[in-house]
Order: sequence, then structure tokens, then C-alpha cells
Amino acid sequence: MPRDELPARWAAHHALGPGREFDAVRAMLARWGDLTRGVGDDAAVLDVPPGERLVVSTDASVEDRHFRRAWLTPGEIGYRAATAALSDLAAMAARPLGLLLAITVPGSWRDDLEAIADGIGDAARAAGAPIVGGDLSGGRELAITVTVLGTAASPVGRDGARAGDAVYATGRLGGPLLALRALERGERPDAAYRDRFARPRARIAEARWLAERGATAMIDVSDGLAADLRHVAAASGVRIVLDPDSVAAAAVSGAELADALASGEEYELALTAPRSARVEALEAALGVAIARIGRVEEAGAGGGGVELAGAGEGARVDLPRGHDHFSS
Amino acid sequence: MPRDELPARWAAHHALGPGREFDAVRAMLARWGDLTRGVGDDAAVLDVPPGERLVVSTDASVEDRHFRRAWLTPGEIGYRAATAALSDLAAMAARPLGLLLAITVPGSWRDDLEAIADGIGDAARAAGAPIVGGDLSGGRELAITVTVLGTAASPVGRDGARAGDAVYATGRLGGPLLALRALERGERPDAAYRDRFARPRARIAEARWLAERGATAMIDVSDGLAADLRHVAAASGVRIVLDPDSVAAAAVSGAELADALASGEEYELALTAPRSARVEALEAALGVAIARIGRVEEAGAGGGGVELAGAGEGARVDLPRGHDHFSS
Repeated sequence: MPRDELPARWAAHHALGPGREFDAVRAMLARWGDLTRGVGDDAAVLDVPPGERLVVSTDASVEDRHFRRAWLTPGEIGYRAATAALSDLAAMAARPLGLLLAITVPGSWRDDLEAIADGIGDAARAAGAPIVGGDLSGGRELAITVTVLGTAASPVGRDGARAGDAVYATGRLGGPLLALRALERGERPDAAYRDRFARPRARIAEARWLAERGATAMIDVSDGLAADLRHVAAASGVRIVLDPDSVAAAAVSGAELADALASGEEYELALTAPRSARVEALEAALGVAIARIGRVEEAGAGGGGVELAGAGEGARVDLPRGHDHFSS
Repeated sequence: MPRDELPARWAAHHALGPGREFDAVRAMLARWGDLTRGVGDDAAVLDVPPGERLVVSTDASVEDRHFRRAWLTPGEIGYRAATAALSDLAAMAARPLGLLLAITVPGSWRDDLEAIADGIGDAARAAGAPIVGGDLSGGRELAITVTVLGTAASPVGRDGARAGDAVYATGRLGGPLLALRALERGERPDAAYRDRFARPRARIAEARWLAERGATAMIDVSDGLAADLRHVAAASGVRIVLDPDSVAAAAVSGAELADALASGEEYELALTAPRSARVEALEAALGVAIARIGRVEEAGAGGGGVELAGAGEGARVDLPRGHDHFSS
């Protein structure tokens, strides 16, 4: 009765050969320890606190599409897959309720499965998200699909930016892009850049703090600051005007303005808030850098979008819409 | 601003090449029409009705592991992937709240994506489950991961079977196994068997009806009746004694007792309930066959498990624990 001993609903049919599938699931669950929750049933049962809404998102990390084996350790691959999904909860200012995993693991990755599980566990623990269910399959490429569940009384969307708000970003931007550039050239990235690339943080606590302070719109920087703010501008029906010097000052050492605007997979937060909300106090409260990088204006006759101040009337930042390193 | 036009949070980075990813997502969303819900944000926001609990499960369907391209149409592959996941909600007697999709699509499947989406849409519509989010990626094999969300005031688990209860199964068992046997021999399966294999139903309405009538434990038949009831016996700490004649009578025409016990991917329900609950009225109420196939006894000195009546003291049904056609 192997499946019944599992604390969460972990299916593993057609997976790793007779007997081995449950052994693999059990090994992962052992690594996670009390991080797992569930009822050992067909599905997990969870409670949404009264007055809170459910926030859900799913995010796949596929080998050679979202990561390369040569660039990251198995633990980092697991950690990043879970962090990318958890970051979507942060973007809504939601509190994590749990996560579900679907992992497809080829034979060539089988010995790395526990290390991958450790990385997933690190990310889940850092976010306070129990692992409530999963499904393990064999396959021809490593794929980690993470579905995150969270709750929030008032989720912060992309559509709340108002003319007069200021625009902010957490952290220091550009590191992941500089790390990727080095890796793609076959070079070893600077340790600081590599750390930003391999060990991003989902800004869960920071997002909730910012929402309580009065953030009006929020997004996580997954496609690049300019591309992600373009989503905020479109959803809110506003124009976002960035101050080039402020954006450049928010970049990691060695990164240029264009890097800070284009770098994806940062998992930092970009947000709008009235100046009166004084969200700069985040740094003193939670120890995470935050910079005011621009302002929100009426969309006006020229329409919405994102532009750089001083770049001339109606000039738009013309950057790639997304972070697309592996597109084929 | 392609992503902002999407009604649900559909990420599609690193997917199908510049521009094409959003085109593909938009084409799928167009097929689904008003079946999609969402806020076009980093995550979808949903409400759990007061007094209800959240029920969640995730289920991956991977090419050559869970299905073969030669055996099913693209629409059937999408339909089955969604139905398998929705069936886990049925097993808990939950009402669907929504589903999230992560689809990995290789170039060789790209032209079939809309047909796959149609099949997923058919299954979601049949279950009354809106599509609330997703993630589209490129990859080397087709994989469809479906996460289902549902709600129930009192989810029915595997652990509620009590000595004295009767054991029931819905539908007619054995069809999927007989279809698979023919397909594996390179033969064309009997149309009735193929239909059971290719177009199973998630017994959502039936499960809720049965729960209201007093079902004490429930599971969906995904690994085979005997294997799945073994989970119920273990979780409930009981022995389940099946009546061979009744199981054989619940099989599809042409299937034998062993087929009905072993056939997986049925997505019918196996359940326990007191005789006084009169769950046989399901057939008159909802038009779905149901058969009483056994009884629940104290685990006793011989432990729990599943056995066939008349097979001798302590004899256990010695069947494979799961449905493992593609294990390598």
C-alpha cells in the first residue's frame, strides 16, 4: 500500500519502473519532512481563511527551454522552478497556502531527483508554502511544473496604477542577464551575478508589506522591468514614465541602464504607489532595497505604455517584450 | 501587449518562437470562449464559498508514458488529460472551481494544439470547470499537466469506510483494459471498448449525489478496481471483501472478472456506503449504472486489504498495484 503511506497525494504511475516510482516519491518526501501536508487521498484538502480570496497560478520549467543542465546544479534548478511560481503569489501580495508539483524525470536525471527535491524544498520553506500534492512521471526531458495556491483579502493586480502614483522596484536589477550573457559565451559568471541568477528570492513578505502600505499595482519582474511594466500600463490604462538615472542607480554594479530594463527572471517586484505611502521604508523594515524609478501619468492622446523621461515626446522604450533566450 | 489581452494568466515564454507563443495561446483561448475566467494577471483570483473547503490535485499526461500518439486523436488526448485530473475532484465529491493547464508542446505537435485545446475544453465544459490559468512551453515531448481546484463542505476521503458498509462501483468496468490490449497488439479495438478508453467521464455530479446520500469513502478507479480499493482498505483500516459474481456482472460485455478487477483509467467511482443509504437509486436519478460488489469487514487478525469472497481464509487478490502499461 505504498501510496497510502504518502502524506500528500503523490501519484506516480507509468513512472520509473515497478516499485521504483514509489521509492522515488518516498525519498523526496523524506527530504521534505514536515514541509509536506495532505490527506493521502485523491486530492489535498485546504482551508481558505474567511474573508480571503484564493490566488492560483501554474508555472512550468522545462529543460533547455527555461534552464540548461550545464549552468545550474540540480538543487538550483528545483529551487528556481519553485521560486518562479511562488513569485507569482508575491506579485499579487498573496500569502502562500501550498504548492503542487508535477515532475517529469528522464533516466539521465534520476540520480539528481533528491537534490532537485531539496532545492524545491528550500524555496517552499523560504516562502512558508507547504507541499500539498504532486505527480511524478517518467519522460524524455526534465520538466518541473509548480502550481501555487495563496490567499489574500485584497489581491494587488496589475490594473490599479493611477496617474500621480510613483513607480518603484525592489532589489538590484540586471544580475540574471549579466550571468546569462557570460554562460552563453561559455564563461564563468561573476559570483554576484550568478547568485542573482541561481538563487532569486520570491518577495512574498515584502509584497504583503507593500500592499499593506498602499501599493496600487504590482508585478514580479520575470520578463524584464520594461516588458513587465508595459503589462501594468496596459492593464491600468496609464503611461509609465521611467527616470533613466534612477533605473540605472537601481542596477547591480556593472550593469547598464539597458541591462536593468531588459533583465528577466529577477523575481523582484515592480509596483506603483502614491508617494504618501512612503514605501521606501521597506528597506528599513525588511532589509530589501527599494528605489523610486518613475511616475505614472494619464495615458493621454499618445496612449499608454512605458517610456524613458527625456527621451522625447512619445518616445517608447523599444525593448523585447519578454525574456526569450531559448526560443528556437 | 499580447499578454494583457488574455483573460486568464497565460504565460508563454521560451515557447514557440517570437510572436508565435502568444498566437498559439490566443488560438486556444478563442476555442475555449467563455469557458475561460481570470483577471489577466500574474495569478487568477477565485472565491471559495463560505463553509466550503478547497480540494486540489495535479495530474500530468506525458506522451509515451500515459498515452501514445497512434492510439488517440489530439482531441482525445486533451480530453483524457483533463478528465483524469477532474476525476480526482469527483473522487472527493468536490464541485469544480477551475483548472490550470501547463502544456509542453514539441514542434511535431504544434499543428494539433487547437484540437488538443478542444478536447480539454470538452472535458472542462462537461465538468463545469472554467479554465483559470495556464502556461505554454516548447519541449521535446507533449505533456499536459492539469491542476484542478474544487470545493466541498465535506470532502469524501478514502478513510471513511466502516465495517458493515457495502461496496459499490459505478459504470461498467474493463473496457479500457480490453481496448489497450487490442491497441498493444496492433489491432483495432471494439468500438465500445475504445469509447470507454478514449472518452471516459469524470463522475462529478454522480459523486456529489452519492456523497449527499451518505457515501462513507470514495475513490476513482484510475489504477484498477482492486488496486484502488486496496487504498481505501488501508486508509480506512478495514478489510474489503468483493463478491466475484457481482464484480463480473459489473464488467462490460466480453470482459472477465480479472479484467474488471485490473482495468485502470476507468474514472468510474468505487465507494462504500451503508446499505440504508440506498445508493443504487443513482441509476434512476442520474442514469449511470451502479452495482453493489462487496462488503466492508473489520480488518481482524489477518490485517486489512482486499479479497475475493470464497477465495479461502485470508486469501488476497494478488493483482498489480497499478496500471503500468508504459513502465520502462
